Amino acid sequence: MFPVSAELQSHLEAMRAIVDADLVPLEQRLASEKSFIALEPALAKVRQKVKEKGLWGPQIPKSLGGMGLPLTEHARVSEELGRSPLGHYAFNCQAPDAGNMEILQAFGSDAQKKTYLEPLVRGDIRSCFAMTEPEHAGSNPTWLGTTAVKDGSDYVIHGHKWFTSSADGATFAIVMAVTNPEAAPHARASQIIVPTNTPGFRLVRNISVMGESGDGYASHAEVALEGCRVPQTNLLGIEGAGFGIAQERLGPGRIHHCMRWIGICERSFALMCRRAASRMVAPGKPLGTKQIVQAWIAESRAEIQAARLMVLNAAWTMERDGAYAAREDISLIKFFVAGVLQRVIDHAIQVHGALGMTDDTVLAFFYRHERAARIYDGADEVHKVVVAKRILKGFGLEVSS
Amino acid sequence: MFPVSAELQSHLEAMRAIVDADLVPLEQRLASEKSFIALEPALAKVRQKVKEKGLWGPQIPKSLGGMGLPLTEHARVSEELGRSPLGHYAFNCQAPDAGNMEILQAFGSDAQKKTYLEPLVRGDIRSCFAMTEPEHAGSNPTWLGTTAVKDGSDYVIHGHKWFTSSADGATFAIVMAVTNPEAAPHARASQIIVPTNTPGFRLVRNISVMGESGDGYASHAEVALEGCRVPQTNLLGIEGAGFGIAQERLGPGRIHHCMRWIGICERSFALMCRRAASRMVAPGKPLGTKQIVQAWIAESRAEIQAARLMVLNAAWTMERDGAYAAREDISLIKFFVAGVLQRVIDHAIQVHGALGMTDDTVLAFFYRHERAARIYDGADEVHKVVVAKRILKGFGLEVSS
Amino acid sequence: MFPVSAELQSHLEAMRAIVDADLVPLEQRLASEKSFIALEPALAKVRQKVKEKGLWGPQIPKSLGGMGLPLTEHARVSEELGRSPLGHYAFNCQAPDAGNMEILQAFGSDAQKKTYLEPLVRGDIRSCFAMTEPEHAGSNPTWLGTTAVKDGSDYVIHGHKWFTSSADGATFAIVMAVTNPEAAPHARASQIIVPTNTPGFRLVRNISVMGESGDGYASHAEVALEGCRVPQTNLLGIEGAGFGIAQERLGPGRIHHCMRWIGICERSFALMCRRAASRMVAPGKPLGTKQIVQAWIAESRAEIQAARLMVLNAAWTMERDGAYAAREDISLIKFFVAGVLQRVIDHAIQVHGALGMTDDTVLAFFYRHERAARIYDGADEVHKVVVAKRILKGFGLEVSS
Amino acid sequence: MFPVSAELQSHLEAMRAIVDADLVPLEQRLASEKSFIALEPALAKVRQKVKEKGLWGPQIPKSLGGMGLPLTEHARVSEELGRSPLGHYAFNCQAPDAGNMEILQAFGSDAQKKTYLEPLVRGDIRSCFAMTEPEHAGSNPTWLGTTAVKDGSDYVIHGHKWFTSSADGATFAIVMAVTNPEAAPHARASQIIVPTNTPGFRLVRNISVMGESGDGYASHAEVALEGCRVPQTNLLGIEGAGFGIAQERLGPGRIHHCMRWIGICERSFALMCRRAASRMVAPGKPLGTKQIVQAWIAESRAEIQAARLMVLNAAWTMERDGAYAAREDISLIKFFVAGVLQRVIDHAIQVHGALGMTDDTVLAFFYRHERAARIYDGADEVHKVVVAKRILKGFGLEVSS
Repeated sequence: MFPVSAELQSHLEAMRAIVDADLVPLEQRLASEKSFIALEPALAKVRQKVKEKGLWGPQIPKSLGGMGLPLTEHARVSEELGRSPLGHYAFNCQAPDAGNMEILQAFGSDAQKKTYLEPLVRGDIRSCFAMTEPEHAGSNPTWLGTTAVKDGSDYVIHGHKWFTSSADGATFAIVMAVTNPEAAPHARASQIIVPTNTPGFRLVRNISVMGESGDGYASHAEVALEGCRVPQTNLLGIEGAGFGIAQERLGPGRIHHCMRWIGICERSFALMCRRAASRMVAPGKPLGTKQIVQAWIAESRAEIQAARLMVLNAAWTMERDGAYAAREDISLIKFFVAGVLQRVIDHAIQVHGALGMTDDTVLAFFYRHERAARIYDGADEVHKVVVAKRILKGFGLEVSS
Repeated sequence: MFPVSAELQSHLEAMRAIVDADLVPLEQRLASEKSFIALEPALAKVRQKVKEKGLWGPQIPKSLGGMGLPLTEHARVSEELGRSPLGHYAFNCQAPDAGNMEILQAFGSDAQKKTYLEPLVRGDIRSCFAMTEPEHAGSNPTWLGTTAVKDGSDYVIHGHKWFTSSADGATFAIVMAVTNPEAAPHARASQIIVPTNTPGFRLVRNISVMGESGDGYASHAEVALEGCRVPQTNLLGIEGAGFGIAQERLGPGRIHHCMRWIGICERSFALMCRRAASRMVAPGKPLGTKQIVQAWIAESRAEIQAARLMVLNAAWTMERDGAYAAREDISLIKFFVAGVLQRVIDHAIQVHGALGMTDDTVLAFFYRHERAARIYDGADEVHKVVVAKRILKGFGLEVSS
Repeated sequence: MFPVSAELQSHLEAMRAIVDADLVPLEQRLASEKSFIALEPALAKVRQKVKEKGLWGPQIPKSLGGMGLPLTEHARVSEELGRSPLGHYAFNCQAPDAGNMEILQAFGSDAQKKTYLEPLVRGDIRSCFAMTEPEHAGSNPTWLGTTAVKDGSDYVIHGHKWFTSSADGATFAIVMAVTNPEAAPHARASQIIVPTNTPGFRLVRNISVMGESGDGYASHAEVALEGCRVPQTNLLGIEGAGFGIAQERLGPGRIHHCMRWIGICERSFALMCRRAASRMVAPGKPLGTKQIVQAWIAESRAEIQAARLMVLNAAWTMERDGAYAAREDISLIKFFVAGVLQRVIDHAIQVHGALGMTDDTVLAFFYRHERAARIYDGADEVHKVVVAKRILKGFGLEVSS
Repeated sequence: MFPVSAELQSHLEAMRAIVDADLVPLEQRLASEKSFIALEPALAKVRQKVKEKGLWGPQIPKSLGGMGLPLTEHARVSEELGRSPLGHYAFNCQAPDAGNMEILQAFGSDAQKKTYLEPLVRGDIRSCFAMTEPEHAGSNPTWLGTTAVKDGSDYVIHGHKWFTSSADGATFAIVMAVTNPEAAPHARASQIIVPTNTPGFRLVRNISVMGESGDGYASHAEVALEGCRVPQTNLLGIEGAGFGIAQERLGPGRIHHCMRWIGICERSFALMCRRAASRMVAPGKPLGTKQIVQAWIAESRAEIQAARLMVLNAAWTMERDGAYAAREDISLIKFFVAGVLQRVIDHAIQVHGALGMTDDTVLAFFYRHERAARIYDGADEVHKVVVAKRILKGFGLEVSS
C-alpha cells in the first residue's frame, strides 16, 4: 500500500542517482578531512546540479521555487536522501533550515520573509534554531532560562543555549525566549529572529560531539546571548506562541527525521548484506552462510519494513486528518523508529567486524551521530510516557506529570 | 491508510457485539470446565445467531453461503474475532477447517465438494489436517514418513502424525502422504482425504499440551494411520501436488493467523490498560501511574500498530500481486507478529501480577497456547533463514540449505 | 570459587541419584493424571528412602532431625532438587513448609513447636502461609485488609486471602493479619497460627492457575477467614512483628528459590542440548549444527553461570555478614535470576519445537508455572525500584515511594 | 566471596587516588586536543609518581621491577584502572605492551629480553602486535596472508596488517607470519620481532576509527610489510608456534580486558547515578525519581555484579587449574561482559540526554571505542559458537566448522 506515483518514482530515481554519483564519494572526504567547510565548494556544485534537474527544495512550495511535494511524498524523498549524511543538505531540505523555512512561511511577516526566507530558500544563507539549554532538561520544553525583555521598540535577550545546530556560519538564529514569564507554562515563550552578527550573540564553541567538534553546517554550537538587542518586529507570530509554533513544526519534522532514519537503515542494511555476501570467513565460505548473520538480516528487514509503514501511515493520517489526529502516531514513530535505527546500524557494524569500527565505511558515522536519535526532539522515554498517559486517559485514568 | 469501508465497519461492529456479549462470557466456563465439548450446545446457539445476522463464514464465497470477503477485509474480521479464543469457531472460519475449505474449493472434485465441503461450510461437520509427524522436523516439510501406496483402485496409507489439531470429533482428515518417493523432494507428497472412521485410522491420544489434553475441537491429536484404505478418488488435485497445495494454503492462512494474533494483542492490551487504570498499589495510587507500566503500554501500542500494518500490507500485496510477490512479506509477518504477540501477552500478565497467573482472565490461556505461535507453520528461525537467503541472493550469494 | 566440600559433594550426588531414579519418572504421571494427591503414595516411598539415606530435611537443624546444612550448602542442595518439580517436596524442604518451619523455630513458643513444628519436620502434616490478598497489591506488603481483633483470650480474624499455596490438605495456616491498625505501617500486622479446621476458615477454591486447579500440596487456594476464633497464644512472636518476621524469612527463602530456579535452568539446558544433539532437521543433520541454536546454548550457559555466582555470592554474604548486609544482593538476584530462568526455558522449548508445547517433557510445566517467578515475593519491578532507590540514596537523592 | 586482602585493598585505594587526581582531569584534554602525544609530558609525570608509589607494572614480576601480582589480584587492579581510558597506560599494564611483555618473558631469548623486554618494562619504549589482516577474517585466526621466508640467516617478510594498535611511535612489532605453509593450519605461523625502523616496515596510516585517527599510543595502524628483513634470531619460541603463543596470551589478556570493561561499567554507572540524582526534570524533581531510570540503575547494577563475578571466577579457575580448565569460562566472559558493557554505557548516555552525546563526559569516548569490545579478540558470535560446540560434544554431537 502507500503507492508511489510514476512521477514521484522518477524523481526518486533521479535523486538516488545524484546521491550515489555525487554525494557518496564525498563521504570519504568528510571522514578524512573532518571538515564540512572544506567540502562546501564540491557541495555547491552538487546543489547547482540539483537545481538544474528541478529537484531543489522538495518540501518547499512551488510558489517559492521548490518542488512543492506534499508530506507523504516528501517522506519518500527523505528516505532516499537519508541514505547519505550529505543528502538533505544537497537538496536544501536539511534540518534546521527546513524547519525554519516552515516557520517563516507560516508565521513570518512579509519583511521577515523577504529578509530571511527568500535567501534560505535559494540556499544563499543558513540558519539555526536556539531552543535547548544546558541547564534545563529538554524533556520539559516549557522550562527555559532565556528571557527577552522589552526595551523601547526592542527585545533584549539574555540566555544560554546549546545544541544550536549549524550556528557556525549561520546568518540568523530563531531563538526561543521567555517573554511572558507570568503566563501559563505553555504560553511563556516566544520565537524571535536574532541575526548572528547581533552584538552579544556569542558562539561559545562548537561542542565536541562524539569525538568531533565539526564545523560549518555540520556542528552543534553552544551559544551565549548576552544582552542581544533586536527590534520587536523580529518576533515570529504573536508573543507567547513560541511553544505552539515549535510543536506545530515538530509533527512534519518528525516524519522527515524518521524517514531519513529509514534511509540510513536501508543504506546500512545494504552494506551489511553486501559484506555478508562477499566477506570470506574461510576460503569459499562467505559470512552470509552463517545463521546468526542471516537472522540479523531477516530481523532487520522486518523491522525496517515495520518502521517505514508506521511512518508512512503517520504521514498519511497527518495529511488527511491533521497533526492533532496523528499525535499518537507521531509519538510512536519517534521511539519505535529510533530503536530500529540503532539495532540495524549495530548489526551492520558487527557484520563488518573491525572494518565496521573504521571510517572506511559510513557505518561508524551513523553509529556515532545517530545515537542522538533516541535523545533529541524528546528522549524516547518522554514520548513513551506521553503516549501511555493519553491511552490511560481513555481507560479513565488521569495521570499528572 | 488501509481504509475500512462503511459496510465492513458495520460488519465488524456486529461481530464485536457478538464476541463481547456471547463469547467472552463463555471463556470462563471453558477455563473452569476445561472441556470444549461441554460448551458446544452454548456455542451452537451463538453460531445460529451468527447465521441469522448474515455473518456466517466471512471468508467463504457467497456462492457457498458465506460473506465472500476478500483477503484484506477478512483480515480485519480475523482481528476482531481473535479477541476471544472462541471467536473464529463461532463464525466458522476456524483453523483447520477454514484451510481445508480453501483446499476443497480450489482442488476438490465435484463429488469431494458435495461430500466434504458442503457440510463443512454449513458447520455440520468438522475436519482436520494431518501433516506434522513426531519423527520428522516440521522445519523440513518435504521430509515425511507417511506413505500412500496404490493397491487396485485404492491408496493404502501408513504413517504416524501428531498435532493433527481437532481430529477428536472430526469427520475426515486431509492427510499428507508420500505417493511418489522417487520424485524430487517437493513433488513426493499428495493430499488425500481420509474419513476418520476408516479402519486403521486411530486417534492415539489427545496430546496434553501446556497442561491440557483438551477435547473436541480444542485438541491436538496424535494419530496412527495403520493401513488405512481409501479410494484413489480421495486424492486432492494431482499426485505429487501435496506440498504445493499446502504452500498455497499457507499464504492466506498466515494472514488469518497473524490478524488473529493481533486480536489477541488488542484484547491483552485492553486488559493491561484497564488493570493499570484501576489497580491500586497504594490508596489512591493506581498502577498506571508507574513509569515502567507506562513504558510497556507505549511499547506495546507501537508494536501492535507496526504488526497490524505489516500484515495488512502483506494482505494487500497478496491480493493485488499474488502470493508469490508477497512471499517475503508473508515470512516476515510470521516471526515479527509472533514476537509482538509474546511480548504483549507477557506485559499484560506482569501488570496483572498474581491475577495474571490465574484463569480468572483469559491472559493465562493466551500465554500458554500462543507460545506455539513461534513454532507452528515453521519456527520463526526457519522463516528468518528463508528470508535472509532470498535477500542474500539479491546480493549475489546463493546459500544452499 | 565457592568450593563444595567432599562431604557435600557426596550428598549432592546421592540426591541427584534419587531425583533421577525416583522423581523424574513420576513427573510423567503428574502430567497425565494431573493430580498431586494421586502421587502421594509413590512420593511417600521416596520420602522414606530419603530418610533412610540421611538426606531428610537438608535445611532443618540436626537437633530437630534434619541435616543442618548452612545456607551456602543448602543453596547447592536446592539447585540439585530444583531439577524436578517434585524434588523439594520429597526432601521436606518445600515452600511454604520450609519457611514456616523457619518461623516456628525462630519465633514459636514451646507449645507451638511441639504442636506444629515437630510434625512438620517429620513430614506428617503440611502447612500454608496466608498473606497475599486479592484486593491489595502484593507489591505493597504492609497494606492488608485482614484483621485480627482481640475478644477475651482469643483473636477473631476476618479476611480474604489468595495464593495461599498448599492450603488444600494443610493442617494449619500462618495468617498475616492487622492487629494494630493505628501503628506505623510496618508495625500493624501480626502472624497468627490458624488451624485449617477452625470454624470460619473456608477454602473457597483451588484457583485455576495456568490451566490447572491442582490439588493437595500442588495447589494455590483462595481462602475466606470468616470470624475465625483462635487463642491469643497462637500469636507468633509479638504483636505487630508480622511484617518483620516475613522479611526475615524472605532472605534465605529467596536463596532457596533462586537456587531452585537454577536447578530448573540446568534441567532445561540439558534437555535443550540433548535435543539439539539428537533431533535431525534433515537426514544426518542434527539441529545442534544450526548457529542460532548454538547461540542460545552459549548464551544460556553464560546466563546460568552468572546467575549461580550471583546467588552463591549473596548466600555467602548473608551467611558471613547477615541478611541486612546482603539485602541489595537479595533484591538483585530476585529479578536477575527470574529473567534468566524465563529465557532459558523459552530457548529450551523453542529447540524442542512442537514437542516443547506438549507435556511429554517437563518444559511446558516449567514454562507455565515458573512464569510466576517474576511476580511472587515482589514483582521484579518492585525490586528494581527498591534497589535503585537505595543506590541513589548513596548519591544524595532520597526518593519517597 | 573472592575476598581482597588488606594489602591489595591498600594498593587499590592508592591507584584509585591517582586515577581520580591525576588521570581523570587529563581526559578532558584528550577530548579537546584529540592527541595522545600532546598528553605524553603530563602522563610521564604521572608514570613517575606511580613508580615512586611502588605501583608500577602491577602484572610484571617483581624480579623485573613490577608488583608481581597474581592474576586474580591484577584483575582487581585492572578494574580500578579501567575507570579511566588513561589508567592502564599510566601504570604500564596497557595492551598491547602488557601482552608483548608476557610473550617475551615466556618465550624470549636472553638477548630478546635484554633488547626488548627490559626497556618495555621500564616504560622507555612501546611496542605493537601485528596479527589482524584486512583481507582475512579475524574470526579465523589461522588464516593469514603474511609470509616470512628464510633467506640466509634472515627472514624476509611480506604482508599487510591492520589494527596494529599503537604502532605509531612503537619501537618494535611482534609480527605473526606464515613460516610453514605446508603444516597443519594451527602450526603454520610464527611470531617474529620486527623493529619498526626495519626497511620495508611502512606505517600506511593511523586508521580513522570512530571519527578519530588518533596518534601515538592511542592509534590503530595499517601496516605494510614490504620485504622486511630481520635475523632469524628474532623468532619468538619455535617456528610454527605463533598461534599457540597467541592463544596462551589470550587467556590472561581476556581477564585483563574484561576487568577493564568492568571498570568502565563502574565509572559509567557512577556517572549515571550522579546525573540521575542531580539533574532536574522540573523544579525540585530529579531525573532519579523516574521509574524507567530506576529500572536501568537496578538492571545495570545486577549485570555489573554478574559480570564481575564471572570474570573473577574465571581468573580463579585459571589460576588454580590452568588456562585449559578455564577455557569455557574465558569464552563466556568475552561475550557476556562485552554485552553488559554496551548496555551500561548506553543507559548512562541516555540518562545524560544531550550531554551524553558530547565529549564533556567520558561516556561518548566509551561509547565509541568500546563498541569494539564485541568485535576484537574474536567477535562475540565466534565465541558463542565455540562454546556451544564444546558443550554439544558432551552430548555426543561433533560439529565441524
